[in-house]
Amino acid sequence: MRTVIGVDLGGTNILSAVVNEQGEILGKDKRPTLAKLGATKVMLRIADSVHAASKESGLPWSSHLAVGIGSPGPLDQNTGIVIYTPNLNWHNVSIVEILRKNLHKPIFLENDANAATLGESWVGAGKDEKVVFCVTLGTGVGGGLVIDGKIYHGATGVSNHLGHVIVDPDGPKSSYGNKGILEQYASALGIVRLAKEIGLKPPTGQKTTPKTFKEMALDGNVKAKKVFETAGRMLGIGLTSAIHLLNPSVIIFSGGVSHAGNILFKPMYKEINARCFKTHLKGLKFRMAKLGDNMGAVGAARLAWQALNSSKK
Amino acid sequence: MRTVIGVDLGGTNILSAVVNEQGEILGKDKRPTLAKLGATKVMLRIADSVHAASKESGLPWSSHLAVGIGSPGPLDQNTGIVIYTPNLNWHNVSIVEILRKNLHKPIFLENDANAATLGESWVGAGKDEKVVFCVTLGTGVGGGLVIDGKIYHGATGVSNHLGHVIVDPDGPKSSYGNKGILEQYASALGIVRLAKEIGLKPPTGQKTTPKTFKEMALDGNVKAKKVFETAGRMLGIGLTSAIHLLNPSVIIFSGGVSHAGNILFKPMYKEINARCFKTHLKGLKFRMAKLGDNMGAVGAARLAWQALNSSKK
Repeated sequence: MRTVIGVDLGGTNILSAVVNEQGEILGKDKRPTLAKLGATKVMLRIADSVHAASKESGLPWSSHLAVGIGSPGPLDQNTGIVIYTPNLNWHNVSIVEILRKNLHKPIFLENDANAATLGESWVGAGKDEKVVFCVTLGTGVGGGLVIDGKIYHGATGVSNHLGHVIVDPDGPKSSYGNKGILEQYASALGIVRLAKEIGLKPPTGQKTTPKTFKEMALDGNVKAKKVFETAGRMLGIGLTSAIHLLNPSVIIFSGGVSHAGNILFKPMYKEINARCFKTHLKGLKFRMAKLGDNMGAVGAARLAWQALNSSKK
Repeated sequence: MRTVIGVDLGGTNILSAVVNEQGEILGKDKRPTLAKLGATKVMLRIADSVHAASKESGLPWSSHLAVGIGSPGPLDQNTGIVIYTPNLNWHNVSIVEILRKNLHKPIFLENDANAATLGESWVGAGKDEKVVFCVTLGTGVGGGLVIDGKIYHGATGVSNHLGHVIVDPDGPKSSYGNKGILEQYASALGIVRLAKEIGLKPPTGQKTTPKTFKEMALDGNVKAKKVFETAGRMLGIGLTSAIHLLNPSVIIFSGGVSHAGNILFKPMYKEINARCFKTHLKGLKFRMAKLGDNMGAVGAARLAWQALNSSKK
């Protein structure tokens, strides 16, 4: 049995999975990242998690040919260095070198959004699709693009920043200077901002989160409904631009905000249907991610398989 | 000597070029398309033009291994059919089959914007660049994308429609339902529209064209300057979205409106510099197309070379 181990490194959890060449998970470990311990200790936790997943698979250590890692970025794949991640407070961490010395396996690195997209395109909602565009509606808005089964990196590894597509040129100013970008509307931060803008507050004792506002909207709160209507409309506008540029086969949604469901997606579809060329909508599928928690780890495993197979040639 | 012949089929002219594997033009013919004659006669004119370019090269007919054609679209590469082109008034023309029977060579078909981008990326302003994004500012606004030397087609051949990226969600309505798209500002039609909107008229006896308005702007006409300022600003907004999604190495401008120069590009750069992430601008080049009239024919020739080389494998 030949396998690889995929690791999804997040600000909250580390998830490791032993994955065979068909994309099946044969063993798994999930544990808190405990980012506050710092990079050195977190990397020991990654190694422990990899060993635990291996043990759970019941397979010998030698059956794992490589380890793939999906990490928050920006990062440099060539040098194997995570340049900076606010969630972990890492600066220039040589993750590939350190884990190679610890685990004695080839290590392959990719940013988390790309790894997740690769996972969905391999065995998830994008299986057998030519151009897979993943949209993560989380704290921010992220994108991932897989073309003919391979991650698209752009010229310098900063492509697919869907959150920075302009949806209202005179909208609110972002922290780095751009105005009216999708992330200011269709992310968790955006929804909280929209709520504040129209004076929507959570009921006493409840948290200021998209989830709270979603429940208020479902209970008929007019302001809460308005917040999701705006977020959905803006998502439709941003995706219309992306659809005309990228012409994807499938758009796959993931992330906490995507669970808002119809109150978000109905205004999104309305906007897309009113604005897109019919030729661009023909055959285009909209789907929810299928791999759930495992997206990133399965994608990181696929990355390792691709790297192993291409180095054999 | 091994060569191919590239043909750029336009609404106004047919341009054919004999091109070697280094991208050098060894013979050329340019003649009016005379689209009014209809598809059958225009195809005979294409064949005549190909023969004339061959004759000009001084090479034997047998040295031409194939013919590549860049045509207005939409078209279907697999069946070799031009589905519809308003400029030529063609409907479902089997251009590949007809020319193969006439010329007795393998024929390869691509849409004109993609062919032009391929030409520039091969031996023009995008030479040796990883991700080449061509922006055509003509009657409309078009885009072409070449990644690692190959045309990006998207899922169904309708990618890179930069003209349909939204730059103002509440802008004027386009003919097909979208609102405030780049084409309504930064194209020849857009500039004429903007002029009308603010009551700018050409001097008596002069035509209502971007060229006339450009000269008025350079002469200090405030309204004319305003028109190009708006067009440039919107171009900057649309390109900011494209840059964050595609992360190109180089953006190459062509088309009549691009010759407006600084009155258009200064406001564009201002917008891009204010809005783009620094990581996305690092190393990004902005250039004018280098191949001029020959862009499409050279790109069509490259297409033929790529098809020949891949079929050898």
